[in-house]
Amino acid sequence: MIVILKQNAKKEDIEKFTKQIEAKGIKVSPMVGEHTTILGFLGDTTRLDMDDIMAVDIVESVRRVQEPFKNANRKFHPQDTVVRVGKQGVPIGDGRLAVLAGPCSVESEEQIIMVAKEVKRLGATVLRGGAFKPRTSPYSFQGMQADGIKLLLEAKKETGLPIVSELMSIRHIDLFADIDIIQIGARNMQNFELLKEIGRCDKPVLLKRGLANTMEELLMSAEYIMAEGNQNVILCERGIRTFETYTRNTLDITAVPVIKKLSHLPIVVDPSHASGQSWLVEPLSKAAAVIGADGLIIEVHNDPKHALCDGAQSLDFGQFEKVMGELKQLRETV
Amino acid sequence: MIVILKQNAKKEDIEKFTKQIEAKGIKVSPMVGEHTTILGFLGDTTRLDMDDIMAVDIVESVRRVQEPFKNANRKFHPQDTVVRVGKQGVPIGDGRLAVLAGPCSVESEEQIIMVAKEVKRLGATVLRGGAFKPRTSPYSFQGMQADGIKLLLEAKKETGLPIVSELMSIRHIDLFADIDIIQIGARNMQNFELLKEIGRCDKPVLLKRGLANTMEELLMSAEYIMAEGNQNVILCERGIRTFETYTRNTLDITAVPVIKKLSHLPIVVDPSHASGQSWLVEPLSKAAAVIGADGLIIEVHNDPKHALCDGAQSLDFGQFEKVMGELKQLRETV
Amino acid sequence: MIVILKQNAKKEDIEKFTKQIEAKGIKVSPMVGEHTTILGFLGDTTRLDMDDIMAVDIVESVRRVQEPFKNANRKFHPQDTVVRVGKQGVPIGDGRLAVLAGPCSVESEEQIIMVAKEVKRLGATVLRGGAFKPRTSPYSFQGMQADGIKLLLEAKKETGLPIVSELMSIRHIDLFADIDIIQIGARNMQNFELLKEIGRCDKPVLLKRGLANTMEELLMSAEYIMAEGNQNVILCERGIRTFETYTRNTLDITAVPVIKKLSHLPIVVDPSHASGQSWLVEPLSKAAAVIGADGLIIEVHNDPKHALCDGAQSLDFGQFEKVMGELKQLRETV
Amino acid sequence: MIVILKQNAKKEDIEKFTKQIEAKGIKVSPMVGEHTTILGFLGDTTRLDMDDIMAVDIVESVRRVQEPFKNANRKFHPQDTVVRVGKQGVPIGDGRLAVLAGPCSVESEEQIIMVAKEVKRLGATVLRGGAFKPRTSPYSFQGMQADGIKLLLEAKKETGLPIVSELMSIRHIDLFADIDIIQIGARNMQNFELLKEIGRCDKPVLLKRGLANTMEELLMSAEYIMAEGNQNVILCERGIRTFETYTRNTLDITAVPVIKKLSHLPIVVDPSHASGQSWLVEPLSKAAAVIGADGLIIEVHNDPKHALCDGAQSLDFGQFEKVMGELKQLRETV
Repeated sequence: MIVILKQNAKKEDIEKFTKQIEAKGIKVSPMVGEHTTILGFLGDTTRLDMDDIMAVDIVESVRRVQEPFKNANRKFHPQDTVVRVGKQGVPIGDGRLAVLAGPCSVESEEQIIMVAKEVKRLGATVLRGGAFKPRTSPYSFQGMQADGIKLLLEAKKETGLPIVSELMSIRHIDLFADIDIIQIGARNMQNFELLKEIGRCDKPVLLKRGLANTMEELLMSAEYIMAEGNQNVILCERGIRTFETYTRNTLDITAVPVIKKLSHLPIVVDPSHASGQSWLVEPLSKAAAVIGADGLIIEVHNDPKHALCDGAQSLDFGQFEKVMGELKQLRETV
Repeated sequence: MIVILKQNAKKEDIEKFTKQIEAKGIKVSPMVGEHTTILGFLGDTTRLDMDDIMAVDIVESVRRVQEPFKNANRKFHPQDTVVRVGKQGVPIGDGRLAVLAGPCSVESEEQIIMVAKEVKRLGATVLRGGAFKPRTSPYSFQGMQADGIKLLLEAKKETGLPIVSELMSIRHIDLFADIDIIQIGARNMQNFELLKEIGRCDKPVLLKRGLANTMEELLMSAEYIMAEGNQNVILCERGIRTFETYTRNTLDITAVPVIKKLSHLPIVVDPSHASGQSWLVEPLSKAAAVIGADGLIIEVHNDPKHALCDGAQSLDFGQFEKVMGELKQLRETV
Repeated sequence: MIVILKQNAKKEDIEKFTKQIEAKGIKVSPMVGEHTTILGFLGDTTRLDMDDIMAVDIVESVRRVQEPFKNANRKFHPQDTVVRVGKQGVPIGDGRLAVLAGPCSVESEEQIIMVAKEVKRLGATVLRGGAFKPRTSPYSFQGMQADGIKLLLEAKKETGLPIVSELMSIRHIDLFADIDIIQIGARNMQNFELLKEIGRCDKPVLLKRGLANTMEELLMSAEYIMAEGNQNVILCERGIRTFETYTRNTLDITAVPVIKKLSHLPIVVDPSHASGQSWLVEPLSKAAAVIGADGLIIEVHNDPKHALCDGAQSLDFGQFEKVMGELKQLRETV
Repeated sequence: MIVILKQNAKKEDIEKFTKQIEAKGIKVSPMVGEHTTILGFLGDTTRLDMDDIMAVDIVESVRRVQEPFKNANRKFHPQDTVVRVGKQGVPIGDGRLAVLAGPCSVESEEQIIMVAKEVKRLGATVLRGGAFKPRTSPYSFQGMQADGIKLLLEAKKETGLPIVSELMSIRHIDLFADIDIIQIGARNMQNFELLKEIGRCDKPVLLKRGLANTMEELLMSAEYIMAEGNQNVILCERGIRTFETYTRNTLDITAVPVIKKLSHLPIVVDPSHASGQSWLVEPLSKAAAVIGADGLIIEVHNDPKHALCDGAQSLDFGQFEKVMGELKQLRETV
């Protein structure tokens, strides 16, 4: 950590500040220029808060040199993490492209089983399906909730596919006992109490990037989970909010190689939510595949035109089959 | 709601779609142009989801005419709502400028009581203080938690000031029984399960705008609380995330008159979090006061340089006194 | 164009407004609901300005149905445009991936000729090189200017490669007589007088998307050039400005398929400026290639570490060779 | 400037790099930590380009300590600059609130003279009026151009009010000989060739902040003008582009106190373009006045409903009178 002091900082104040920091077991190395003094803080500065340092009256600005995340940091864990999902241990992060597919919302037993069978046949290795749905409006369909979870487990029994579904509240955690991957949605990426709670289970977690969160903040949220003990975190890039209005969000495809560089955790891409339009799922999936994503999470519906939510971005079976074919061909090259 | 159909939409498909919508009790009025057909949906379209409509294959685009919020809507509730806080019924939204002040974090009994007495003496009518702190890093100080709540209640006993403090989890709701205003932080603005839960109490809620949320989304989150029965919602503009890096966030001061136009709910401004710098609190507070904010929530600390969090943006007592003096003068004019 | 009227709009005002619009040769089709009246404007509404309509006092809001661009619109020009560059007519937009490569800045005759020969050998078909450089600071190197143009023409003579270089002022237009593609940089995307001026030549133009401009605005700027007669416009996605700070800009990869859908113009991607980091050029180039970009514009330097500008994002010859190899393999698959 | 080196930087490379920098007359002060070496560059680093430094292979990151602007910097010019406009020397920046008012576009002699007389009567000290109009669409009204300038000069003759009007091209500079303030619009804020050109006149310049430009970039653009000799720069905050769609742009009111701190140049606020809605002009003007703006630039039209452009954001005379009354009262307090 580098601390730039104000031009008029008095010698005695600098000394006092230095002692306070050294008392925390951190070495302070000063660099005295003609107009400016800079202090370098050496050692484990992860526990130092930049805002606390900024508040010291002789401090002009502060800059981290080390990344503030440890468990998620590739520097301390050079090998790729492979997360194993469900009883069969379906791998995510092993160099192959995992496809997690299914409807936005579970709507009925018939629907979820039909979709599960079909996406399995076409190559998906995990079934996604929403039972609890975060909706901007309280008047929109909120998901089938507990009943939806039951139907997902039916589909799992029927097809053997492990399940990923979104958890929105600590209250529902028991319902998710047999769900294989707990999804934390974009809106809850910084719901720190929820992160801590799921950090205490050993179940895989799919952590989606928040709409206005930086890559570093995503990794810090992963760190919340990992610091509690759960190392099975899968990150997800699903588009960020920008000024562009043609697409629902702006897919930050660059996040894939950057996250792979900074962290050993697997990262998947969600082209359905990023674009909000089904015709964009194929091109974005291909881009994600060649840029190194560990997987894709794709909305597939038996009848997108009559879906209860987010139908505009869901693929029908024919479209999904086409995407899977294209991806297969691409991956064979790469 | 206005639905623009695709150029090649077939007559039979339009008829089928029209019947589906009319089955929901909504009148459909078509406008047939040379190239385009447009359908107007008349009646209560609040329950229609735009994404569901978008998914219909003959639909090109959809646009709402009515705002999607009802309880929060000034059209259906023209008078300003005045929220009464605590036993004494301290008003927020009655045309005067309420000042909610106190430290970012509760740190000790001595500190919180000292600050409470001082901000009361200088004109604050509510004491703010964080017991549970949302921090980007799991390694940063997370607040005194339950002990912090106890100390806030001590400060209330001592000074009579009602208390506002942030709630981060349903788990902690019982601890907040004697807290007078529950604060929902920016990161939890779309934690819908938490919103529903506090919608079931009748306690005033201070709902902060999310970092990347529009004003309409803020009102929809208020709607989540109000739809459950709790009408005591105070909105808070605290800066949004933009490309500008000089300030921590960008205060969207225009949100004040816009929210006042769209909604009857009171709105307060948080100049401390918006700017992240104590010297900006005074000018931003003055701007908020003249533009019509119902209140300000200001960080004040007995010793900002040694604060455990966010010290950089806290005022000391002298600075707070100066701000209060300036505001008094301004309000006398306006 | 759809015009939603205010709830209290008087019948006589609606009639008056209707007549004003009809006087412009546009058919007005009203849709009268219980609370709201909506007017559909049918015909060529391209010349109607949305702001003018918004200013009419009975108007609540306005929405376009037709895209406001014509010459650039795929609806009126379904086939892909292929822009032919230089004497040999090097194609951009013919389904193959064109690579435009070269240094950020021309620095010396030796340098530019060395780079030109090398990028040609490795498969680039156009040489890029900056002579006039837009720099945030007036104290930064502003390019070799007229001398740089001369050196680029030397490199062209030597290698036969056509040249693309940025034009920043009408004043310099004569200097560009033998430059094959005029580049309009992101900062000048809405320098409308410059756009009109180059619309009057028949030289290919590489038009870069502005940092905070939507895809529609990019197409409207292309329209400025095309409306003056010049149809040889190549669009360029080079990253937009967002809150993310890890990369210099955020590459909006989705712009490629969207622009291809809306327009017949070719679009190339600039991974160097989008990311600002040389190690990201390879992954972003691959993503751009599979998602359907017509070309890539890549910074290549003989000695990036000593480049006079933007060295951090330039590839050296070895890195460029590797990228070209990867792209070749990918393109063979796709 | 602080340069953080990579962990594996070799001693000989550090020495080589140090010598290169010292050759530019800059003192290099190293700080050697256990894992990281940091170099402090002391002296005039304004001419060093951060990108050039970043490109050096042993460099991890770079950070400026000094602001990169000099002429515009308050540190080197502590007193407020007062720009004197026109023959009478109308002051902007002298502590009073200057009001620049007039129509978006000049439309006719009758109109501009009527507006000029009226805004003068109501207290404006400069007449604004657009002759050359930057429009997103080439099919929108582009202004009366040279004829518009003539009419503005008529209005000046009639009322004595100095004139501010937007210059979009070097080509038109002669036409502006008798215009008192040259306005550089948001879209041309980084049209560096235009900035240099007007830096060579001694006429006051109103420089508007670009839609996606930081405050520092605004000051760097002012620096372009000032480095050429022209010190008469007036800055203008007119809203930035964000994700919020209710208002056309988001007024960054905090820019006023920040710019006043960083620079001695006057800053005015444009509430009309920031909001795009006439009813927001009054509240935003009041906020700007109390936060310390040196002036306001307000669109006023004799008949906003029939204005040729931007009518939605123009005030009529009655509304303008009301705003001026409110501002007078406020300023008397402050």
